[in-house]
Amino acid sequence: MTQRYRVTVAYDGTDFAGFQSQPNQRTVQGTLEKALMKMSKGEAVAVYGSGRTDSGVHAYGQVVHFDYPKLLPATSMLRALNSLLPLDMEVVDSQLAAPDFHARFGTSGKRYLYRVDLGHYTNPFKRRYTGHYPYPIDVSRIQAAMPDVMGTHDYTSFAASGGVIKNKVRTIYDATVEYDESANELIFEFYGNGFLYNMVRILVATLLEIGNGRRDVHDFLRLYEVKDRQEARSTAPASGLYLKEVYYKTDENN
Amino acid sequence: MTQRYRVTVAYDGTDFAGFQSQPNQRTVQGTLEKALMKMSKGEAVAVYGSGRTDSGVHAYGQVVHFDYPKLLPATSMLRALNSLLPLDMEVVDSQLAAPDFHARFGTSGKRYLYRVDLGHYTNPFKRRYTGHYPYPIDVSRIQAAMPDVMGTHDYTSFAASGGVIKNKVRTIYDATVEYDESANELIFEFYGNGFLYNMVRILVATLLEIGNGRRDVHDFLRLYEVKDRQEARSTAPASGLYLKEVYYKTDENN
Repeated sequence: MTQRYRVTVAYDGTDFAGFQSQPNQRTVQGTLEKALMKMSKGEAVAVYGSGRTDSGVHAYGQVVHFDYPKLLPATSMLRALNSLLPLDMEVVDSQLAAPDFHARFGTSGKRYLYRVDLGHYTNPFKRRYTGHYPYPIDVSRIQAAMPDVMGTHDYTSFAASGGVIKNKVRTIYDATVEYDESANELIFEFYGNGFLYNMVRILVATLLEIGNGRRDVHDFLRLYEVKDRQEARSTAPASGLYLKEVYYKTDENN
Repeated sequence: MTQRYRVTVAYDGTDFAGFQSQPNQRTVQGTLEKALMKMSKGEAVAVYGSGRTDSGVHAYGQVVHFDYPKLLPATSMLRALNSLLPLDMEVVDSQLAAPDFHARFGTSGKRYLYRVDLGHYTNPFKRRYTGHYPYPIDVSRIQAAMPDVMGTHDYTSFAASGGVIKNKVRTIYDATVEYDESANELIFEFYGNGFLYNMVRILVATLLEIGNGRRDVHDFLRLYEVKDRQEARSTAPASGLYLKEVYYKTDENN
């Protein structure tokens, strides 16, 4: 008898070699599995995430599921994990889940956030938590381009090569940019039904080049057509990217 | 012929073993001296700071001076250092200084800031940059105590033992506390003519105990009298402390 749990974790991705377990590497999945094995007195518990995050990418709300050999109240699971996890990872929600809940296959959408520091110099307190673009930016150009980012498109130009996924059509329901004057930062948000490998980071890099004037405001329309990764050259750094929220079909049916 | 420089540096103290050079340790002073030695093609340049900061303590405005073997414009010094320094340290100001300017002996005062996260759980994104107090706090009790912190007092109860400094009388010109609701943080600031070893961290720990109700609101008055470090037991963690600004007598005469 096992009980399935749905657990939401926040982490500072800087010191993790990404989400996925790898031998001799400190990963998010591996760290969770180690804590669960400790709790279960040595029994291995496999953790499944909503998707991988790369090294340096953060999460406010990564969702995972796992089957635990004992029935614990959801709040006890949260407290037990937090007492065992390192300080750069925190369980922010814990729920008992149905046996068919799946953190990856049950998703209906995800929301990502990207922070760009526009300061002239690198800020020692932001280097782990933002991208950095020290060049002139016209925010109104980026705002004019945001509607082009939304909708259903073939995002081949915005996917890192080497992926095994053939269908590169995705829908972005909402894409916004805000300028935070006190922090001198641009804050991007993207909410869509799915994202290709490195897609948010390539979108952000392209939008920054539009803001800088190095690309036409409506260059997205051309990039959708050409379907060529070489045309959207740059990738914004991992440090600015946050998996903010994961949405599930089952939640919508409630 | 050497030229004296006055340079202001910001740093994230988390990954430094404090300010002062130590063999086989990554320190602020050692990192600056290494960069300067590279610039001067191997000639050793000694760096003097306004004072030491402990491991984990941050700075927005630590001031140092050094004598450089060549005359460089101040902005070139800033740019050259920033191109050589690691990302958790940044030169924010650079000036040519008079030969008798001294970063330590010329100070007239310092301003420290202390951030306390009041969240229930440790926040993975704040653990390097705040202290953490997850217990009930009545901010009005701390506000009522702040006037007692100001003025000229013998701070023996608030100095880590083991120091060589005999005279423990200091003047705090201003001490404030603010509650930042969106961040759920308390922000303390202390501006004084000088601070004893660990003094700000002990003051903050004592103020938090007052806010929690474990100490009388006016316990400072008793603690000044007893002159006993054992009475002000706790020390707030280094991670919340920032050396914000250093003031100089010479600047006031201008």
